[in-house]
Amino acid sequence: MSRTRERLDRAGLVLPPPLAVPAEIDLPFPWVSVRGDRVFISGHGPQNPDGSLAGPFGKVGAEVSEEEAVDLAGKTALAILASLEREIGDLDRIVAWCRVFGMVNSAPGFNRQPAVINGFSSVIAIAFDAETARHTRSAVGMAGLPFDIAVEIEGEVLLAP
Amino acid sequence: MSRTRERLDRAGLVLPPPLAVPAEIDLPFPWVSVRGDRVFISGHGPQNPDGSLAGPFGKVGAEVSEEEAVDLAGKTALAILASLEREIGDLDRIVAWCRVFGMVNSAPGFNRQPAVINGFSSVIAIAFDAETARHTRSAVGMAGLPFDIAVEIEGEVLLAP
Amino acid sequence: MSRTRERLDRAGLVLPPPLAVPAEIDLPFPWVSVRGDRVFISGHGPQNPDGSLAGPFGKVGAEVSEEEAVDLAGKTALAILASLEREIGDLDRIVAWCRVFGMVNSAPGFNRQPAVINGFSSVIAIAFDAETARHTRSAVGMAGLPFDIAVEIEGEVLLAP
Repeated sequence: MSRTRERLDRAGLVLPPPLAVPAEIDLPFPWVSVRGDRVFISGHGPQNPDGSLAGPFGKVGAEVSEEEAVDLAGKTALAILASLEREIGDLDRIVAWCRVFGMVNSAPGFNRQPAVINGFSSVIAIAFDAETARHTRSAVGMAGLPFDIAVEIEGEVLLAP
Repeated sequence: MSRTRERLDRAGLVLPPPLAVPAEIDLPFPWVSVRGDRVFISGHGPQNPDGSLAGPFGKVGAEVSEEEAVDLAGKTALAILASLEREIGDLDRIVAWCRVFGMVNSAPGFNRQPAVINGFSSVIAIAFDAETARHTRSAVGMAGLPFDIAVEIEGEVLLAP
Repeated sequence: MSRTRERLDRAGLVLPPPLAVPAEIDLPFPWVSVRGDRVFISGHGPQNPDGSLAGPFGKVGAEVSEEEAVDLAGKTALAILASLEREIGDLDRIVAWCRVFGMVNSAPGFNRQPAVINGFSSVIAIAFDAETARHTRSAVGMAGLPFDIAVEIEGEVLLAP
């Protein structure tokens, strides 16, 4: 059995089903794409257990509290792991996290983006050993995100060559 | 003859000349840079047939309509393909699109960034076969872009090793 | 002696000590991470000689002038070079700058992000020969940055394989 999955299970963390894309829009790209040993991850948002995008929606520091946003960043990590697992079969194939770009839908004056994206990094730290989980990171404030999601994250991981 | 060029020609899509950089600013970096088999693409904006930056300018959802922005994202794709062709000689050398980061100059409340960046992805889908064109993507809202362009896109492609 | 260090010394440019992380926040990620010959750089802000984050703080075009922001972008370059040197030992090991993503905390209407990020590119041009220094770049406006820093920059460089 996948050690990564085992760690997630033990922590009570559940991977969501594929995103139920809102009806009014076409998203003509894959969530994850493997090119050699590099795995590119499209911008993901947080998901509910039924696959829909998770709220609360809006700007962190206004409609969404920092505490809620931390939770949404964790849900975004799970959405990404779910997409990765669907594409590569077993999360144990990941040998290195590389770059993580954490985007926070930010109300004027909100400046605690790193605290929000820590919700993402915590899940990665649970799922992988420290050497694999190690990722560089930016956590920054956006003027708007699709569907008014509060958090969006993209990045890259490596597979064994 | 380049198959990629042929597909663009058949669709009536024309690659613009090099960007006519606004006089008041120095841009001390290349639009495209080849490092081994990786090709890095600087943030591009939409261009007119004469090489100048294309408007309308301003924020999507305010001065720029969503429909206009979709068109500008398509023009940005053509600007990128033009830069790539000037650097690598023949667009057929591209074997894989990797990561695309689509930035939309967003008015408060505008949340349809993916619809805008679809204007980019459509051009890539016309120019390349499906396996080559496949790219991961983020489409997000910025607080401001250089020269008030409405759309800016950066990314990475791979050449045959 | 490191040629890169020599060039920096000759220009009177000093690399700051590790970031003195503001007490109220946990930053559970490395500033730089080596994966094979690729070196990923987390989002850095400008630093003072004592390692603290450098101000003025706030939005460029409002609390921070363009001229001050250019200086802060240069300080961000030095902070990045310092992180790189601590991780890889000698900056001469860098054979190629790849991608640079320059983020400017932007007041409404500010659209001269490239002029700001030129402060970064100038330092890289001093520290490395032209072929190594060549980097693709985006320079864009953010709705907010951690701790209200005015500039944040992330990127990737390559080491000799």
